[in-house]
Amino acid sequence: MTRLQNDLFLRACKREPIERTPIWIMRQAGRYLPEYRAVRAKSDFLTMCKTPDLVAEVTLQPIDIIKTDAAILFSDILVIPEAMGMHLEMHEGRGPIFPEPIRNEDDFKKLKTIDPFVELKYVMDSIKVTKDELDGRVPLIGFSGSPWTLLTYMVEGSGSKTFARVKELIYNNPKLAHQLLDKIADTVADYLNAKIESGVNAVQIFDTWGGILTPSDFNEFSLDYMTKIISKLNKENIPVIMFAKGVHHSIDKMADCGANVLGLDWTMDLGKMREQVGHKVALQGNMDPTILYGSKVRIKTEVQSVLKSFGEGSGHIFNLGHGILPDIKPDHAKALVQFVKEESVVYHK
Amino acid sequence: MTRLQNDLFLRACKREPIERTPIWIMRQAGRYLPEYRAVRAKSDFLTMCKTPDLVAEVTLQPIDIIKTDAAILFSDILVIPEAMGMHLEMHEGRGPIFPEPIRNEDDFKKLKTIDPFVELKYVMDSIKVTKDELDGRVPLIGFSGSPWTLLTYMVEGSGSKTFARVKELIYNNPKLAHQLLDKIADTVADYLNAKIESGVNAVQIFDTWGGILTPSDFNEFSLDYMTKIISKLNKENIPVIMFAKGVHHSIDKMADCGANVLGLDWTMDLGKMREQVGHKVALQGNMDPTILYGSKVRIKTEVQSVLKSFGEGSGHIFNLGHGILPDIKPDHAKALVQFVKEESVVYHK
Repeated sequence: MTRLQNDLFLRACKREPIERTPIWIMRQAGRYLPEYRAVRAKSDFLTMCKTPDLVAEVTLQPIDIIKTDAAILFSDILVIPEAMGMHLEMHEGRGPIFPEPIRNEDDFKKLKTIDPFVELKYVMDSIKVTKDELDGRVPLIGFSGSPWTLLTYMVEGSGSKTFARVKELIYNNPKLAHQLLDKIADTVADYLNAKIESGVNAVQIFDTWGGILTPSDFNEFSLDYMTKIISKLNKENIPVIMFAKGVHHSIDKMADCGANVLGLDWTMDLGKMREQVGHKVALQGNMDPTILYGSKVRIKTEVQSVLKSFGEGSGHIFNLGHGILPDIKPDHAKALVQFVKEESVVYHK
Repeated sequence: MTRLQNDLFLRACKREPIERTPIWIMRQAGRYLPEYRAVRAKSDFLTMCKTPDLVAEVTLQPIDIIKTDAAILFSDILVIPEAMGMHLEMHEGRGPIFPEPIRNEDDFKKLKTIDPFVELKYVMDSIKVTKDELDGRVPLIGFSGSPWTLLTYMVEGSGSKTFARVKELIYNNPKLAHQLLDKIADTVADYLNAKIESGVNAVQIFDTWGGILTPSDFNEFSLDYMTKIISKLNKENIPVIMFAKGVHHSIDKMADCGANVLGLDWTMDLGKMREQVGHKVALQGNMDPTILYGSKVRIKTEVQSVLKSFGEGSGHIFNLGHGILPDIKPDHAKALVQFVKEESVVYHK
């Protein structure tokens, strides 16, 4: 195993002493980079996800160009339902579509039990190529959607404003919803364990749609399954990050679910959250992604404000409160990374 | 003035003793009702808003059909920017469009200072016709968008996922943003005072987009202007409701802003909020709107759970945590109202 030249991210996850605050950016391998768009222009999105050389290329772009402290393996959360047998189409402008969504017991029975080293072998191959090319420069993060977030896509079949279908399911057939979530949770746990075995240094679970649920539904239909996954991970020395957007009401419970790090969106007060749960977990986030529309001067002020809010000591991984937006200037992302590196030193004396 | 036959809603706003919990539903005069769609089929949306007889007709529909305890004057928040001189187009499926959005100082200068009794005379006329037809059965609520929410539409010009333009404005030209918000706040205050003078029994300010801001930006760009409006209202005996969706972080500050009632979305714990601020304000909400996709049995369980969460005594106006969705069965909305009326009696002994 290559020794990591920059392990600030991993040490911050474990709340060990560091010299400055590490930063990476959700969706850092993405459309805001012209270098990414150049790769994407030659290949459709799913082919990119399934071609290890292309995965490695776009995963490394932000490390070379904007110089973040961690890489995150380029992929999509929907590779899991696809591997379970659901036909997935990616439509430009309309987002992902499952033409045959899951709506009843028969649909559920059609979902395959998978071996991630077989059906998702291309992901494991991608990890190996990416690790080789990274050559120990920074740690590599692997990710998955949460069972609840995957279920919303699998049931809705396409983007939704109201989530009518998946809400109908949990209200009118909670038993089936739980069967589905349980199967997805087992699949995600196997998938993340395979990623760990293949060499990722940390994993992040994204619960993009946890925030559409009431507090009690979130606990029943989302958090319980993320907790189950974490309990099944072979996570010796592999930090687990849980990011549940819009879930301001269950921070204490999330801090107790076994994750090492909680990701926070930009509506949360980082300082208050550190006070509340920072003795249990590290915190990741949480600059408003739209601040990058502002001037560099404004970005710098906001970086200072986020760093000040967390305060002195380890346990903070700087990030945006949600993915970087596709129309952000790469120059502003570069400036953000540089500001965090410079401005955070004083908090780690 | 006609004496109100059912003033439960007004008494709950003032936290005075009541026999049962009152209920009304955001967007209760809306597309889920076939009777509404029948009116809408014969007239475009803006013409409906500007025709007092049609406003009265659809405003009364939910009182007659689903039997809520308050009426809310049918209108749209964007009548204000239109009255200030912005050309407004309503596109089926695409939502409202301002083809010439506000982007700079010159655009700002073009915004007219209005007299709501002139430019928005049709609203005041609608109130009179509606009050006549209501004939004292239930109170009538008038509403406005918050200055921040109106500004997002005026700057973006159309629906947005990222709010890039309005965020650019507040980060790169906060001075202009404040000038705009101040002018809009004055206009909203005059507008709501005109509505009060014309006969509405309560007013609600909707801050639909307050939740996209960080806590400090929310205070600076949204709450301060709602507070200014409330301080200018001639509100003797007229309850003021403030509903800021997704603003979980500033409940204490909102409880101190002069409003009589805070509206809560479905991600908030009603019981905890009552404990935290219920000695200052009444609370409105907060059933998940998608529960109405569930069976009547499921709806009843949720009604019981929301009522139990608030507990005994006055100070709760039952509502959804957001507007009723257009594909909800009217029968389910009727059942909801009936359940609240029956199940709440035990909490008011």
